[in-house]
Amino acid sequence: MRLEQTESSGKPASGRSAYFGVEKKRRMPLGGMSFAAEKLLLEKILQAVGNPPVQILLWNGLEIPTQKESTVAQVLIRDLAALLKLFFNHRLYFGELYSARRVEIQGDLLDFLEAVFRCRPLRRANRSSDKLLLPFDEIRRNTLAGARRNIRHHYDIGNDFYKLWLDERMVYTCAYFQHPDASLEEAQLAKMDHICRKLNLRPGETVVEAGCGWGALALHMAKHYGVTVRAYNISREQISLARERARAEGLDGKVEFIEDDYRHMRGKFDAFVSVGMLEHVGLDHYRELGEVINRVLKDDGRGLIHSIGFNFPRPMDDWAERHIFPGASPPSLAQMMQILEPYDFSVLDVENLRLHYARTLEHWLQRYEDNVDRVSRMFDENFVLAWRLYLAASITTFKIGKMQLFQLTFSRASNNRIPWTRQYLYGAECLPAGLNNGNL
Amino acid sequence: MRLEQTESSGKPASGRSAYFGVEKKRRMPLGGMSFAAEKLLLEKILQAVGNPPVQILLWNGLEIPTQKESTVAQVLIRDLAALLKLFFNHRLYFGELYSARRVEIQGDLLDFLEAVFRCRPLRRANRSSDKLLLPFDEIRRNTLAGARRNIRHHYDIGNDFYKLWLDERMVYTCAYFQHPDASLEEAQLAKMDHICRKLNLRPGETVVEAGCGWGALALHMAKHYGVTVRAYNISREQISLARERARAEGLDGKVEFIEDDYRHMRGKFDAFVSVGMLEHVGLDHYRELGEVINRVLKDDGRGLIHSIGFNFPRPMDDWAERHIFPGASPPSLAQMMQILEPYDFSVLDVENLRLHYARTLEHWLQRYEDNVDRVSRMFDENFVLAWRLYLAASITTFKIGKMQLFQLTFSRASNNRIPWTRQYLYGAECLPAGLNNGNL
Repeated sequence: MRLEQTESSGKPASGRSAYFGVEKKRRMPLGGMSFAAEKLLLEKILQAVGNPPVQILLWNGLEIPTQKESTVAQVLIRDLAALLKLFFNHRLYFGELYSARRVEIQGDLLDFLEAVFRCRPLRRANRSSDKLLLPFDEIRRNTLAGARRNIRHHYDIGNDFYKLWLDERMVYTCAYFQHPDASLEEAQLAKMDHICRKLNLRPGETVVEAGCGWGALALHMAKHYGVTVRAYNISREQISLARERARAEGLDGKVEFIEDDYRHMRGKFDAFVSVGMLEHVGLDHYRELGEVINRVLKDDGRGLIHSIGFNFPRPMDDWAERHIFPGASPPSLAQMMQILEPYDFSVLDVENLRLHYARTLEHWLQRYEDNVDRVSRMFDENFVLAWRLYLAASITTFKIGKMQLFQLTFSRASNNRIPWTRQYLYGAECLPAGLNNGNL
Repeated sequence: MRLEQTESSGKPASGRSAYFGVEKKRRMPLGGMSFAAEKLLLEKILQAVGNPPVQILLWNGLEIPTQKESTVAQVLIRDLAALLKLFFNHRLYFGELYSARRVEIQGDLLDFLEAVFRCRPLRRANRSSDKLLLPFDEIRRNTLAGARRNIRHHYDIGNDFYKLWLDERMVYTCAYFQHPDASLEEAQLAKMDHICRKLNLRPGETVVEAGCGWGALALHMAKHYGVTVRAYNISREQISLARERARAEGLDGKVEFIEDDYRHMRGKFDAFVSVGMLEHVGLDHYRELGEVINRVLKDDGRGLIHSIGFNFPRPMDDWAERHIFPGASPPSLAQMMQILEPYDFSVLDVENLRLHYARTLEHWLQRYEDNVDRVSRMFDENFVLAWRLYLAASITTFKIGKMQLFQLTFSRASNNRIPWTRQYLYGAECLPAGLNNGNL
């Protein structure tokens, strides 16, 4: 499926089409002239990417392959340094060069990304080559201070920017589309209800949330499920808006937004929930996260972790980790278990919602493109292009199954107050009919 | 929850009560007499088991603790050698001594087991102490020949025996009780439908089954979902009866029962299913199993593995592994991923049905006790007691959360013909309404 904009109009959206005409003039059809070195580099790059059906054009007119009929898109490389960088590390530099317009895509960006991502060989984590290419790269660890720095890089760039393309409640995680054609607003609401049902929230209970974004879930839980919530986040901008919203909705007595690290959680709660934070925790800190959950969860408490994941341990995309989400590293399902296994938690349910994340991201990119002029007034062109690439590449990775979205529910091993079946998640009535009576 | 027999009558079931009177006469109240060595050993044993609320009585009248009011059951140890064996390795020898009536339980067996299992420290796998106690123990590996030997030890002891206490279809795996009070027959039928729905079976498709028991699921799939099935099993007795049933039901053209190891699977199938076999595969062979699945599953195929599991890597119970299920080793969820991760399979869904296995086993034990006289005519007393202990201990481990039942659904990473939500598993209509249209 393509974005509506490209489906309906048959041409790239306004934000993309603006720069496509330029190089058409510069490109020179040089016919029989040969550029042996450039050609070799291009072939090596194409080979490294798994020979996707794309045509590469160079600033000097060289084209590989020479026929573009069987290709889905064209890539224009504007200078020799760009070519060398792609040869050196296409995973890191493609994004940088695309954002700087030194590499441009002619054709549909999503089609191009899908063609490349489907062909590109899978990388597994902990192969020595992962590190060799960037020996002097800084390490963006998620220590208390490092995590704060990493989170602010992404989430503190301005609430007004996120308002432009998120849903009205500003939920910046995978939505749950009960039907594929549900609206983004409906799907984010459905996602929050899906999570609340999975957690079996009962009025009067207490919830602790790790990484609360702009507070939508915490406020929803308090308002519709009668619980009190303590929600942690180290993004100053997000916490600030969340507190404002709690006051505006008269929920500031039910929801406490705390600008602090999840590692500083204190108290005992009926439910632990974390939606879209685990990606930022870092594999080295999973045991620490497990220790926190073990400390704050009551004996009959329930927990839910919602996170992007991989089918097997993989390194984060080089460019995204450096420029979009510093310090981020989505886990495999087995790696997620490093949080729970040391403390004898039982996994009750895992649901993979990757196609829902592809759909969510399609909505976000659509809204982003619809508002790209306003984004352009907030940020420079490099930012505008980088975020377009990030959203488009994310759609693609979820769509073709290179990234997963795991929603994992757990409880302590001995807790028998767990749902007897999952019927209650899907029936008209929700709670507490679906609950086991607790004394099997 | 107790078995009905003990709940309704307030006394142990007939099968158990027969031998309880004996030692009451032998036991001598020795008052102030002391047995320092025995006492020390008893204290060490109780300590090793985590000091459960049980009273231990020795052949010589020694009782620890002296007051039995706060205890849930009494354990009679009949001789010094039994005491020493329990001191040496209670995990292995308790079962052996119980089966030999050298250790007896006074009170409800399930209450006793629950008290002990709740207190007993958790063992994690790969601790050196796991091996030290049994340095000369044979290793029951699951090589092709070893697996055959191990499987026959348990499954080839007579179909007539299993008929006495399984449901009418002879399904020897965790059932799915849509309501806790469903009958075992209903629950096994519901389990098979639950699996078929998770696999999205469509008429005309092909299924391969690894470890098919007496063939109930294969026959059910062929009869009610219009698929053809190739089902593998290395238990001669099971395959023999399965073939007989296929002929009797006129399904021998749709279901092929093959007496062979899963490692010899050939062909390409729309679905791979394995219910209750993984426990016997052995952790060393997970990659091999993954390779088989990768080889036989079509690109848009779906897979389901249903297996007993642990919350973290644990050694199998010493006694059960030696006497009941040689070579068996249930995995943790992370360990299960060793099957799927090397081949880039995506986990779509994990459901934990441990309380359903406790309920299933309660039905089995109830039927076993109801037919214990017939069992006694088939096997010696040691067998009768060992199987009672195995069934009762299994109830307890699932009930208190020391064992899990994972039902895991997967597909290839790139397969987008996967259900959009899980609603279709729970609604009236099942297929193919719940399917994503495949071209997101």
